[in-house]
Order: sequence, then structure tokens, then C-alpha cells
Amino acid sequence: MKVAIVGASGAVGQEFLRVLADRNFPLDELVLFGSERSAGRRYMFRGMEHEVKLLCHNDDFKDVDIAFTSAGAGISKEFADDITRHGAVMIDNSSAFRMDEDVPLVVPECNAADALNRPRGIIANPNCTTIMMVVALQPLENLSHIRRIHIASYQSASGAGAAAMAELQQQYKEINDGKPVTVSKFPHQLAYNVIPQIDVFQPNGYTKEEMKMFNETRKIMHSDVKCSAMCVRVSSLRAHSESVWIETERPISVEEAQKALAVAPGVTLQDDPDNLVYPMPLETAGTDDIYVGRVRKDLADDCGLTFWLSGDQIRKGAALNAVQIAEYLIKVGNVK
Amino acid sequence: MKVAIVGASGAVGQEFLRVLADRNFPLDELVLFGSERSAGRRYMFRGMEHEVKLLCHNDDFKDVDIAFTSAGAGISKEFADDITRHGAVMIDNSSAFRMDEDVPLVVPECNAADALNRPRGIIANPNCTTIMMVVALQPLENLSHIRRIHIASYQSASGAGAAAMAELQQQYKEINDGKPVTVSKFPHQLAYNVIPQIDVFQPNGYTKEEMKMFNETRKIMHSDVKCSAMCVRVSSLRAHSESVWIETERPISVEEAQKALAVAPGVTLQDDPDNLVYPMPLETAGTDDIYVGRVRKDLADDCGLTFWLSGDQIRKGAALNAVQIAEYLIKVGNVK
Ligand SMILES: NC(=O)c1ccc[n+]([C@@H]2O[C@H](COP(=O)([O-])OP(=O)(O)OC[C@H]3O[C@@H](n4cnc5c(N)ncnc54)[C@H](OP(=O)(O)O)[C@@H]3O)[C@@H](O)[C@H]2O)c1
Ligand SMILES: NC(=O)c1ccc[n+]([C@@H]2O[C@H](COP(=O)([O-])OP(=O)(O)OC[C@H]3O[C@@H](n4cnc5c(N)ncnc54)[C@H](OP(=O)(O)O)[C@@H]3O)[C@@H](O)[C@H]2O)c1
Repeated sequence: MKVAIVGASGAVGQEFLRVLADRNFPLDELVLFGSERSAGRRYMFRGMEHEVKLLCHNDDFKDVDIAFTSAGAGISKEFADDITRHGAVMIDNSSAFRMDEDVPLVVPECNAADALNRPRGIIANPNCTTIMMVVALQPLENLSHIRRIHIASYQSASGAGAAAMAELQQQYKEINDGKPVTVSKFPHQLAYNVIPQIDVFQPNGYTKEEMKMFNETRKIMHSDVKCSAMCVRVSSLRAHSESVWIETERPISVEEAQKALAVAPGVTLQDDPDNLVYPMPLETAGTDDIYVGRVRKDLADDCGLTFWLSGDQIRKGAALNAVQIAEYLIKVGNVK
Repeated sequence: MKVAIVGASGAVGQEFLRVLADRNFPLDELVLFGSERSAGRRYMFRGMEHEVKLLCHNDDFKDVDIAFTSAGAGISKEFADDITRHGAVMIDNSSAFRMDEDVPLVVPECNAADALNRPRGIIANPNCTTIMMVVALQPLENLSHIRRIHIASYQSASGAGAAAMAELQQQYKEINDGKPVTVSKFPHQLAYNVIPQIDVFQPNGYTKEEMKMFNETRKIMHSDVKCSAMCVRVSSLRAHSESVWIETERPISVEEAQKALAVAPGVTLQDDPDNLVYPMPLETAGTDDIYVGRVRKDLADDCGLTFWLSGDQIRKGAALNAVQIAEYLIKVGNVK
């Protein structure tokens, strides 16, 4: 089993190295790719150094079985053919192919089997905010069909990449030192602020990030659910959080929802407000599950329920979800 | 006109001093009150020093016309009789009396005239998050009755008082200096975090802060509207933000809503996403209006609309709103 990581130096790429090691992923050979910026750099994996190769249009992917790509949508599009043409499965973290009809969009807890039907050899990993939400929604959908979703997100700096996270830390340092604040990775200063924009605006007034939540949720869950999202950048480093309201066909009680969430794969129910226990990004960072708490009735909707969730968007929202897809393919013997 | 400020040293109290000066409030004499902690301290107002007096059960409020109180609900309850028994109007910023039937709960943009009917001499200033929301809702309610509200808040550290705001700054300093982080004013570390709890929990799983949004909105707007709120503390210093979804009786178009908001008292429409213009706490801090942007259709509700707002919760959410109530009473000749 030969595995490639494209974008190894990035926030998601680095997490791939950790997740593959942590889970003892059954690989025999690992190759790393990047641009000129990181080519030649060495990263440790299972006690051995691996050098980053320059990504080029050549036959480097000839013997690769699984390629995890996280170098942005442009690179994914440009190199998809190089990566897949010898038979490698490309599990792509970018938004390049997510809504393509002939590319499955997979969250194993929801629709693992969709990964088996991939005419182009590409499987798309959904948007991080969407992955986190659907992992929590699936057990509730199993109780009663979800008709609408309202969701407000609290997304961390690292969602915009490794350099963006460093910029937030630098901003607080600059403020402490009484220096002017550097703003380059975000549209505005993020330190001591909240930015109600993630990705670019669409004609309907929603951002791309918000429309991903609408479209990708429907595709992953095979559902006609309607989702209105507000995606907001806040001053946490790692792990996103979300406030979610759902309307189901029949009313679900809080107890019923909690019971379903407590046993759902990929979910940890963390709902003990009397002891000030609820999910928070500072604690969910670096962990695998989606943490759900503050489950309660929607006071504005008799068929409604609301809850809060938090999870590491670089783990389950990106690297971990992609690795879980690969593990599923290996388990069912469907890699090549 | 003799005016008193109870809790003058606090976040809201200090803002009273600024707002009264900025607006050239027609007062002849100003008296400040506090506990032992601040008694004797001097604050400048219109170029003159004013010494904080110790708040006691005595006749200090004998000649006071208007008392602005912001020293917490316990103090308001304990001293309401001392303050009002000689005829002073008590405009109270705490939650002590807000839901009492014989105490009007007033946001001048919504229900100014309610302030005229105050059998106990007390007028309550609503919860800050609620004030900010209803200022933006009123012009939309005037177009079509609002039936439901879903709201997720992004509340700044100063909402918990002056010391809490200082604690957040200290936390970032400690992190920069590699020291252990002090946590005392918030239930958890707030720096680089998001805390999904403001105030204490109620049996229905909502916090008091969230239930205030349900109950106070109905009282202020004389409405049967149902509101499901999620109140969250984020890492901004001053000014709260809110993501709001409303369902109206008839559908309101985005253009219609924007037009109504653009001319609404107390509202500044700041809705130009193509130029990355939308309300943010870093910019709305220290200003008077509620800034509304990102107005768009609710994709999950044909009669729904959604928008984002931000405003200074110590100004319009507290001191400014109270002063505006007083200005209204003066204007209609209804102080004593
Ligand atoms: N961060 C998240 O939370 C998250 C979550 C889900 C999905 N994603 C998606 O994952 C992708 C990567 O995100 P990230 O946060 O890891 O970004 P990042 O930290 O900025 O890393 C970007 C990576 O892409 C590589 N790259 C850029 N241009 C390249 C080129 N021409 N050839 C080869 N490699 C190139 C970079 O390598 P060099 O260092 O050599 O330039 C780097 O390894 C994006 O599509 C993003 O939308 C991110
Ligand atoms: N911060 C906000 O955004 C906001 C918004 C709306 C409403 N409010 C409400 O306004 C009130 C004050 O909030 P804050 O944020 O200004 O709090 P703060 O910064 O902690 O200030 C509290 C004030 O209360 C005074 N005080 C405390 N105990 C007292 C006593 N026994 N006798 C006399 N004065 C006493 C303090 O004076 P000493 O310094 O002498 O102790 C101080 O001036 C609270 O009810 C709060 O819920 C706050």
C-alpha cells in the first residue's frame, strides 16, 4: 500500500501525518508532495524522515494506491489526471469536485458506500463545517427526517490554513507589544474581533462556505433538507463550533435525541450544563469526535430541536474523515 | 435636574459618564454612588471632579430626579425603595424588575410610551443582547408581524463587566508570556476559546440570558413572537454581534427589509458584502447605533429573512438606552 499526501506541509497535510500514524494506517510507503516552497523539507513519519517532492506533471503517482490531496482546489483540478490515471484513488480535501455528479462526497458515518461508486477515481471530502454538522445530524435524521436547518458557526483561524492561524497569534502578540497589527490572511483584523465572512460572496448574499453547507449536506445525506447558514470566523485557533437548529417531521424529545447522539459513531455527547460541561474548541482541538451538548427544544418550533457542537475541523473536518474513507475502502477490499 | 449614577465605577457606570457628556444631557447636578471599593474615588464629568459616595440606606436620593442604576440586580432590589421613595425615576440596568408587571421595560425605538406608566417609579432597561436585537426587529415588524426568531449571539467579554474584560486581556498576555492563564470571571478560559454559556442554566436547558431574549422581546414588542436563542461568549472586548433569522407572516424581500432598516431610528445599514463591508465588533465598539448587514433570504423558510448585527452593548445595550429613556421623559415633561 503506497500512500501520497499532496500539500504535506499545510495544516491539513501535517494532520494527515499524525492521523495516519495514530491509527496505524496499513501503509508500506509514503510519499509527500508540495510546491517549491516546501519541496526538499523533511517530515518524520513512524520514526523515518520523508522528503517533500515537488508536485509536477509526470508519472510520480504510478504506484500510488491512495492519494490524499489538500493543496487547494486549483491544484486538485490541475493534477487530478496525473494523480488518478494509473489507478490511484484520490481523496480530495478541496472544494474542486464536491458537487460533481460523478464524484461521491463522503462522510463515513453517513454515506460510506457512496465511496464505492467513483467513475473518475476521485472521492471528495466535504467542507469541514458541513462534515461536523452531518455527523451530528445523521443519528437524528434516523429518528425523523430533518426538514430544515438553521446554523450559525464559530470557526477557528486554522480553518484558513496554517499561516492564518499563525497570523492570529501574531496579532495578539503585536497588540500586547503595542505594535501595529498585521492583517493579510483574513479580510480584517481577527484578534479581539469576529468576522462574519468565510470565503467569497455569492449573488444570493450567502458566502461560498454557507452555500457549501446547503448543497453538500443534501448530497451527503441524500436529503431534500433546506439549510440556512451563517459562517463566522472567531478568535479560536483550532476546532470549529456550531449552533444548530433543526426541524424534523415528527417532534423528537430531548431525551430521545440525547440517547441517539450518545451511541452515534463519531459523536461524543457532552451535555451536562449543571456542571458547566459542554463542548468548547479549546478542549475539542486535537481530538477525533464531534462533541455535542446543550441539547434542548427549539422554543420557536414545536417540531424543532437545537444543540451546540464543537470539533477539530482539521481532524474530523479534513484529515481524519479522508483517512476514514480510505480505511473503509481497505476494509471492503475496494482500493484498486 | 439632579441625576444619580449607582455603580459609577463599573463598565456601564463609566459609559453613563461618557454618554451624558456626549449628548449634553440637561443636568444641573450629578451624584455618583458605589460600594466601599470605589467610594471616595473621583471621576471627571464636564471638567469637574465628582466623588463616588457610599451607597447607604438613607435620604441621599431626596432631591434626585433621575437615578441610573447599574450595580447588579441584588443592589437594585435592596435600594429601590431608598432611590424612588422621594420621587426619583429609577432607570435600572439590572434584571431585577424587567419582567415585573408594574415595571415598564423600554427600548425607545420600540415602546417609548410604556415608560410613562410606572406605578413604582421604576423603568427597566432590557438585557443588552435583547435591546440590540429589537432595535433591528422593530422596522421589520412594522412591515409584517414576526412569528419566530432564531438567534445565535457572539458576545464580548465586557458584557460580564469591566473586570471580565480586563481578564480576557490578561489571559492573552499570560499566553504570550508563557505563564499559566488566570480564570476567575468566566467559567472557563476565554482567550482562544468560545464559551457556550452566559448566565446560569434554567430547567429547560436554556440559560437565563437566552430566556431573557425570549421573554423580554415579547414584553418590549407587545408580541407573541417565539424566540430560540443561543448565547455565546467570544473573544471580543466590546460590542456584541448576533446572527438572526426571523419568520414573518408575509414574506419580506431583501430590498424591502434593507429599505426599512436604512431609515430606522437607531439602526445603520452596513450591507455591502462585495466591498467586504458588514458589521464587526471591532468597529461598532464605542458607537451608538445597531449596525445591520448581510441581509438575505432564509434558505430554509419561504417567509424567512436572516441578517447579522453588531453594536456596543455597553452603549445602546445599557447606558445609551437608559439615557434615551430619560431624554424621552424630559421631552414629554414626565420626569416627576
Ligand atoms: N484548514 C482546514 O481546517 C481545512 C479543512 C478542510 C479542508 N481544507 C482544505 O484543505 C486544503 C488545504 O488546506 P490547509 O488548511 O492545509 O492549507 P495550508 O495550511 O495553507 O496548506 C496548503 C498546502 O498546499 C500546498 N500547495 C500550495 N500550492 C501548491 C502547489 N502549487 N503544488 C503543490 N502543493 C501546493 C502547500 O505546500 P507549500 O508549503 O509547498 O506551498 C501546503 O502544503 C484546502 O483546499 C482547504 O480548503 C482545509
Ligand atoms: N456590561 C454590560 O455590557 C451590561 C449591559 C447591560 C446591563 N448590564 C448590567 O449592568 C449592571 C452593571 O454591569 P457592569 O458590566 O457595569 O458591571 P461591573 O463593571 O462589574 O460594575 C459593577 C458596579 O456595581 C457597583 N457595585 C457593586 N456592589 C455594590 C454595592 N454594594 N453598592 C454600590 N455599588 C455596588 C460597583 O461599584 P464598586 O466598584 O464600588 O464595587 C461597580 O460600579 C449589571 O446589573 C449588569 O447586568 C451590563
